[in-house]
Amino acid sequence: MLAITHPAPGVLELATRPDPTIGDRQILVAVRAAGLNRADLLQRAGKYPAPPGWPVDIPGLEYAGDVQAMGSAVTRWHIGDRVMGLVGGGAHAELVAVDEREAMPIPPGMRFADAAAIPEAFLTAWDAMVLRGRTVAGDRLLMHAIGSGVGTAVAQLGRALQLSVIGTSRTAEKLERCRVLGMMHGVLTTSPDWPARVGDPVQVIIDTLGAQALEHNIGLLSPRGRLVVLGTMTGGRAPGIDLSAVLRNRLEIIGTAMRVRSLDERIDLVARFVRDVLPMFGDGRVTPIVDRVVPMREIADAHRALESNATFGKVIVEW
Amino acid sequence: MLAITHPAPGVLELATRPDPTIGDRQILVAVRAAGLNRADLLQRAGKYPAPPGWPVDIPGLEYAGDVQAMGSAVTRWHIGDRVMGLVGGGAHAELVAVDEREAMPIPPGMRFADAAAIPEAFLTAWDAMVLRGRTVAGDRLLMHAIGSGVGTAVAQLGRALQLSVIGTSRTAEKLERCRVLGMMHGVLTTSPDWPARVGDPVQVIIDTLGAQALEHNIGLLSPRGRLVVLGTMTGGRAPGIDLSAVLRNRLEIIGTAMRVRSLDERIDLVARFVRDVLPMFGDGRVTPIVDRVVPMREIADAHRALESNATFGKVIVEW
Repeated sequence: MLAITHPAPGVLELATRPDPTIGDRQILVAVRAAGLNRADLLQRAGKYPAPPGWPVDIPGLEYAGDVQAMGSAVTRWHIGDRVMGLVGGGAHAELVAVDEREAMPIPPGMRFADAAAIPEAFLTAWDAMVLRGRTVAGDRLLMHAIGSGVGTAVAQLGRALQLSVIGTSRTAEKLERCRVLGMMHGVLTTSPDWPARVGDPVQVIIDTLGAQALEHNIGLLSPRGRLVVLGTMTGGRAPGIDLSAVLRNRLEIIGTAMRVRSLDERIDLVARFVRDVLPMFGDGRVTPIVDRVVPMREIADAHRALESNATFGKVIVEW
Repeated sequence: MLAITHPAPGVLELATRPDPTIGDRQILVAVRAAGLNRADLLQRAGKYPAPPGWPVDIPGLEYAGDVQAMGSAVTRWHIGDRVMGLVGGGAHAELVAVDEREAMPIPPGMRFADAAAIPEAFLTAWDAMVLRGRTVAGDRLLMHAIGSGVGTAVAQLGRALQLSVIGTSRTAEKLERCRVLGMMHGVLTTSPDWPARVGDPVQVIIDTLGAQALEHNIGLLSPRGRLVVLGTMTGGRAPGIDLSAVLRNRLEIIGTAMRVRSLDERIDLVARFVRDVLPMFGDGRVTPIVDRVVPMREIADAHRALESNATFGKVIVEW
């Protein structure tokens, strides 16, 4: 098969690799499209190695494609079924092998490039909002970098779950676009007084900024509020933290990451997502947001686009 | 009634106050003994005001005594019943008024001075271990300041719940005494390499130290580990935090405090505690640990003892 590889830090190369072998409960998926994620940028830089059990030098954390072969114990799928899902690595290739229980059906009529924009953004968003953040209808939720793939998913899921979503961005135009998706209130972080513009305390914050936002985040949470940390774009080492406020207000700081999860955890999450969220795509309550679709052979352009921070929603690569 | 009061920061005075009035679902308890807590030391210093609805200038967060009067809607108690429980303030007085649902029966045969050592220490310990920390049998749990009231409760409950409790202290003798109570492994924090002596990663840490221990605590947690912060004895403002480690290892930092909880939360906690923990006192699996019992008129001596950090278990005052 053809695959994107990292022969050295910083280098992207199209190479030929052996086809993956499949186990009894695995399916072999012919990848038609795949999402690009910040983890892929980090991995290209040599900073985020794949977890054990996944290809060490092929990036790609999510895929959409069709079933090409199946292990002897597979019961859920047939050859040709259209599937999408998360992987720990290896999706920027023509073929990927996954456990049948962590693949999800692509909503009927949806093109592969749109389906490839669902797994990371919507599983991460829903897990952070509902399972980690424990939001309930009526809660106020602050999402940092609302124009990102995860952010645009949070804006839409927030509306569907009857939350008031407040979003931050450095770009006024991204805030405008998120308002259309369901965001209730937008805050430009280019202004130093942005925390004051969030308004009333929030029950949950989903944070991709990290270090520089930590103190502000703690100050914005209501009593018993939860800060779910998904990323550290402004740095991983925060200069300080007011533990007294964490204690007095009974706050929770919850670190979460998708890629390091065990197979059992991924299967459990996918089962809940298929039950509770996937139907929302069918009736139009939520929709994948694609910034651009780039041919796999031009993946370097896709990396540059994501690095620019000028994209809105997901960057997709396709064969 | 007589009560200990704070006419000015730092001053303790025995004064006469009006008897509390009781609502329909409240009982009036004649306090026989009451625990002393660090919150009382902070409140004496003017640093920890009582939450709304509780006496502003009478300290005391837990009591043991007998029911002296009841509101018209009380159904659970009779005059003369022996009860104990938490209050938001006011227990260092001859009388305290509490909702009937947040009082607990004193185990048969237990003297008031021992019962007064139960509520704060054991409710806080069990809530932190089980409800906040979500420990399960087999988990390793690190308790800082294991010689404290909460610490000695954690050592005993840990054994009963089949956890491996590791304790820290600055005093070798306290570690020895906690070993008898159920602690598996003791670590002296007077040695700078104490974190290395904890051994394998732990699933849960219950921390009363705060700022100076934060970085070590984060390094000691296993993937998906929980740091439950109950106190900040070494300072409330931590000099830094490795958010990348929190994210990568999917850690949770959970601030918790008992005094600020709503009546509904307290009633719920007490109901679970009565069901799951109180029977352990009857069959000897756990026992309140009392360092000393001081007459209420000599409460200043009790404050000095607790401030010395030389006590083991609870300091109790009694009428």
